[in-house]
Amino acid sequence: MQKITQISRAQAGEITPQIAHVAKLERMNPEELRAAVAAGRVVIPANIGHRKLVPMGIGRALRTKLNANIGNSTLSSCPSQELEKLESALHWGADTVMDLSTGANIVNIRRAIIEHSPVPVGTVPIYEVLARGEGAEKLTPELILQVMREQAEQGVDYMTIHAGLLRAMIPAARRRKLRIVSRGGAILARYMSERNCENPFYEYFDEILEICARYDVTLSLGDGMRPGCLADASDEAQFAELATLGELVSRSRAAGVQAMVEGPGHIPMNEIEMNMKTERELCDDAPFYVLGPLVTDCAPGYDHITSAIGAALAAYYGAAMICYVTPKEHLGLPNAADVRAGVIAARIAAHAADVGLGKPGARERDDELSEARGAFDWERQFELALDPERARELRAEAIAESERNNAVDHRKSQYCTMCGPDFCSMRISKEL
Amino acid sequence: MQKITQISRAQAGEITPQIAHVAKLERMNPEELRAAVAAGRVVIPANIGHRKLVPMGIGRALRTKLNANIGNSTLSSCPSQELEKLESALHWGADTVMDLSTGANIVNIRRAIIEHSPVPVGTVPIYEVLARGEGAEKLTPELILQVMREQAEQGVDYMTIHAGLLRAMIPAARRRKLRIVSRGGAILARYMSERNCENPFYEYFDEILEICARYDVTLSLGDGMRPGCLADASDEAQFAELATLGELVSRSRAAGVQAMVEGPGHIPMNEIEMNMKTERELCDDAPFYVLGPLVTDCAPGYDHITSAIGAALAAYYGAAMICYVTPKEHLGLPNAADVRAGVIAARIAAHAADVGLGKPGARERDDELSEARGAFDWERQFELALDPERARELRAEAIAESERNNAVDHRKSQYCTMCGPDFCSMRISKEL
Repeated sequence: MQKITQISRAQAGEITPQIAHVAKLERMNPEELRAAVAAGRVVIPANIGHRKLVPMGIGRALRTKLNANIGNSTLSSCPSQELEKLESALHWGADTVMDLSTGANIVNIRRAIIEHSPVPVGTVPIYEVLARGEGAEKLTPELILQVMREQAEQGVDYMTIHAGLLRAMIPAARRRKLRIVSRGGAILARYMSERNCENPFYEYFDEILEICARYDVTLSLGDGMRPGCLADASDEAQFAELATLGELVSRSRAAGVQAMVEGPGHIPMNEIEMNMKTERELCDDAPFYVLGPLVTDCAPGYDHITSAIGAALAAYYGAAMICYVTPKEHLGLPNAADVRAGVIAARIAAHAADVGLGKPGARERDDELSEARGAFDWERQFELALDPERARELRAEAIAESERNNAVDHRKSQYCTMCGPDFCSMRISKEL
Repeated sequence: MQKITQISRAQAGEITPQIAHVAKLERMNPEELRAAVAAGRVVIPANIGHRKLVPMGIGRALRTKLNANIGNSTLSSCPSQELEKLESALHWGADTVMDLSTGANIVNIRRAIIEHSPVPVGTVPIYEVLARGEGAEKLTPELILQVMREQAEQGVDYMTIHAGLLRAMIPAARRRKLRIVSRGGAILARYMSERNCENPFYEYFDEILEICARYDVTLSLGDGMRPGCLADASDEAQFAELATLGELVSRSRAAGVQAMVEGPGHIPMNEIEMNMKTERELCDDAPFYVLGPLVTDCAPGYDHITSAIGAALAAYYGAAMICYVTPKEHLGLPNAADVRAGVIAARIAAHAADVGLGKPGARERDDELSEARGAFDWERQFELALDPERARELRAEAIAESERNNAVDHRKSQYCTMCGPDFCSMRISKEL
């Protein structure tokens, strides 16, 4: 078979057009990036059939990326709603999107998303398997491979498979407070328990690698055992699976397939650095793609914030991509407003980590905005803000509330309504 | 003079009723807490005239506390609005409040706040000095001492004074991108520059200590030189002032006055731990009360999140209290909704750090909520949430959106609308 994946071509010494493009974006030496792609420390998810894709890279040495999940559930949502969420995710700055649809019309929703998306599109194929198989009874290796092949043909750039959750690990999950909170993980564990069989994604991993190698689908090795609460963090079940994911990373690379590894979850602050280092060791520095981690369980309604704290720390300690978490996490399916809140919180976390790590150019935007702040150039501050519309809204709100008390026009003022003109420190200290 | 302050009495070996109360709250040995108060590692801001006060303690060994700022500016707000903000701050969980009023009616607003507040009330006396002196021209040592005396008599529990910003440090501030962003600091720097004199709070520090000792006012030694952007972080101006604050901590303790130290500001993630350790060394472990720190400058409209990331790290590395930052930071005066968002974000940060540090009992709430989550006990989850109302609102919203698509009642359901019943991992893995 002709070797067409980014990793194979990089291993053969080629600086692909995608590598060249990403190197430019990341202000990186192309040859250095090629070596990182060849080694598997950076992935460039780029299905050969995804026409509209603008290549991007994921790896610890690059700018921290963020993913936004979209997709319907069996209870709600329709294709146009999903395209609206895609637009929203892109508008607010998602670097990749995952279509997690589990409801009706999966194939058409995905087609529309891939057609419209300039960023890599990821999926979790077992959702479609179940939707098509009408329940876990029909979950067969043949159907899994067929669905993955069809999705690969359709142009999916990366696929999450929970291939590392083995039958032998289930007793450890039973001892947990919340057992298995990954949807794919829970489905597979039930399947293995009921049939007394091994995980089909593990058993047919070679066949899966063949499909991925043909279309350059990047594998996202899912953590079916990610802890769903602080009490279950960093336990035997989690790390047993992670060790297996490390093996699968090796097998992927050997087969010329790009692979990243998914990570937790709910992790207390004191265990985040250890978790990042453990992944790096067990998985030979494969890009780590984390969901959160959420640093507390007790703030439903604000899990975009609990996860922004964890994600900033995770990225600072080496995570390559963070999955956004919206305020609706644990409560319901996010709508477009939740997508916005989730993406911006994740961007703040990713950017803060990049600044802390001194990644090339990361702090330029901060410095420019601070410059504009010192110059009372409100318009420029808004332009440079991660969410210009929100900044404008809040200033307008403050001005309106202030003008209700006195009839002054503050809009172009050399101060904000927080301190007013007489107590504006920046104004005063300019005169020093 | 009779020694009536918590630190003096603790130094004399007394376990005051306040120390006993706080020890119980913090699950700490009273004698151990007495020793910490005597050494100045813990402060219990408790003006002898603040009748309604329920004592609380601030120190690295205790639960991380959070302060919410209220108060009007010269441009907006009125007393009833401020009492509304007080109610809001208390309702959402502020451990102390600061009345930062700079506008009209300062004395009456403060009286109302102290009368209604069971938590310590802090002020920044220079704001009233300026409001009464009609501009910086009238800023005299006599007026400063008079205002501080009157505020102490009124029952203010702690006062921020920028006594460590010395004249010799101003050239270093001039070299900064944003110079001085503390209001009090900027006013004092201008005063010193114009008059060629030293900082009156520094010069009259002994007289200030006398006032504080008489009423047990805790000093909050303000950081007039806190960096206002990442570019100015951890610089010469900041640390020169911090060293002076360390001297003032020693002088306060020697005079039987409780003292804490205020900290930054805007600090990149990689410098937060170092900042916390530097304060501990320079200020002999005086409780560190930090504003943020904000870990990026470029998210106006979301600075409750940029500061939650920094505050979680700061508290994890030893800050004792964090000042909330609202979404309106840098944009305008916060309203009640902003106070709510700011307090909850700060509580998340404080709690995450306490959990990470394994403080006594910190994780119990997380574990209980996770238990309820596993049992699909929605009502119990809401009760345990840091903001029950928000969690309820968001779930109701998700259910309403879902019911628009199909006419099922999901309210008591054993799943959320995020995954729906067939894909609910917790439901599936319960059956394992």
